[in-house]
Amino acid sequence: MQNIIIASTSTIHGSGYLDYILDELTVFFKNVDTILFIPYARPSGISHDDYTEKVSNAFKKINKSVLGIHSFENPVEAINNAEAIFVGGGNTFVLTYQLYKNNITEVLKNVVKGGTPYLGTSAGSNICGLTIKTTNDMPIVYPPNFNALALVPFNINPHYLDPNINSEHMGETRETRIKEFHNFNTPPVIGLREGSWLKVEGNSIILKGHLAARIFEYNKMPYEVNPETELNHLK
Amino acid sequence: MQNIIIASTSTIHGSGYLDYILDELTVFFKNVDTILFIPYARPSGISHDDYTEKVSNAFKKINKSVLGIHSFENPVEAINNAEAIFVGGGNTFVLTYQLYKNNITEVLKNVVKGGTPYLGTSAGSNICGLTIKTTNDMPIVYPPNFNALALVPFNINPHYLDPNINSEHMGETRETRIKEFHNFNTPPVIGLREGSWLKVEGNSIILKGHLAARIFEYNKMPYEVNPETELNHLK
Repeated sequence: MQNIIIASTSTIHGSGYLDYILDELTVFFKNVDTILFIPYARPSGISHDDYTEKVSNAFKKINKSVLGIHSFENPVEAINNAEAIFVGGGNTFVLTYQLYKNNITEVLKNVVKGGTPYLGTSAGSNICGLTIKTTNDMPIVYPPNFNALALVPFNINPHYLDPNINSEHMGETRETRIKEFHNFNTPPVIGLREGSWLKVEGNSIILKGHLAARIFEYNKMPYEVNPETELNHLK
Repeated sequence: MQNIIIASTSTIHGSGYLDYILDELTVFFKNVDTILFIPYARPSGISHDDYTEKVSNAFKKINKSVLGIHSFENPVEAINNAEAIFVGGGNTFVLTYQLYKNNITEVLKNVVKGGTPYLGTSAGSNICGLTIKTTNDMPIVYPPNFNALALVPFNINPHYLDPNINSEHMGETRETRIKEFHNFNTPPVIGLREGSWLKVEGNSIILKGHLAARIFEYNKMPYEVNPETELNHLK
């Protein structure tokens, strides 16, 4: 049975790394001692070691050990043996490139489908969708394709941002970008605002946190859903 | 001799399509009657016909005819025979995908290198760089690669946007994204603010418009350059 948290962000304004969601993670990881961390997305180009240390420090607060996947000789084995997995944010293209390069896309999908608890934030949430085609990131490396883990039957847009009506900037709004996605693709997109997450348990997908999420379905007007809404119907 | 305008945007806030740059275009296209328009980037999913009509209406103001490349049976011939070429904005991934699909990447590069006047705005400017890896667009389709026309020896970031110091949003700033680019790539990146353009004549590359541009070089602090600065040294 799948057991997944798909979080918009690791950090909300004015608080520390993962602080806003630590209570939830205490429950989510209650049967877990050690979390396998995948640091491949490398925010701001941080090294795998430094990123793992940052995550380790956050999880110490709830008495969990963290091991970086880069410290294992065999990353496939590391994933197969993991009690739980966390994929952190950064650049979604870099993350996807590294997952394919290390041949762990399929095994990661399989263990999570099989029940290994999975936490994703930002880029680590993008890859839970069908494709990475609704990432906000710059395409700084060329991955072998845009297909993601397809743990949920739709796409994620993390860090969802409402249009700034006072802006004089002529670049596209997030909503415009997602509408452009639907000119070429049909899956729904969930715009997850910072502080929101999806809780996936088996076939149940529920919006969590204090904020509404914005749902974009093909050929429909976008609409808002409130926390605690079941999103199983989206596909 | 190359003769290129690489513009950040087609439109600045509060004015009509291409209005801000029409005086420059009158001079740039002074020996041209008909402009070949490449509408592939399809902003907001607009059709090739509708996009071409919009562009045609703008160029009527300076007495130029516009023909959309999609109206030609043979796009390679259309490019080879063009008096001048305009590639408009929209989604850079869609544009790149269509250029490769129609096998016109090489011929487009060759005619522009050979002297056919080329105007690019936004996505049409992104493709003038080495790669499309510094586009701001969502990767809504998967192009066969990220290599662009390499008409200039650096990358472009159009619609360059300064960080909003009042924002509580935790997504990356444009500067952070371009710095991430430099963790995996070495070419310089020119952040072109809306209303700026690069004028390329032979080996001369000059910043035009009223605004400074922000230059990102590998392993250097980003810096500003003023209008009329020669940027030939960047590579």
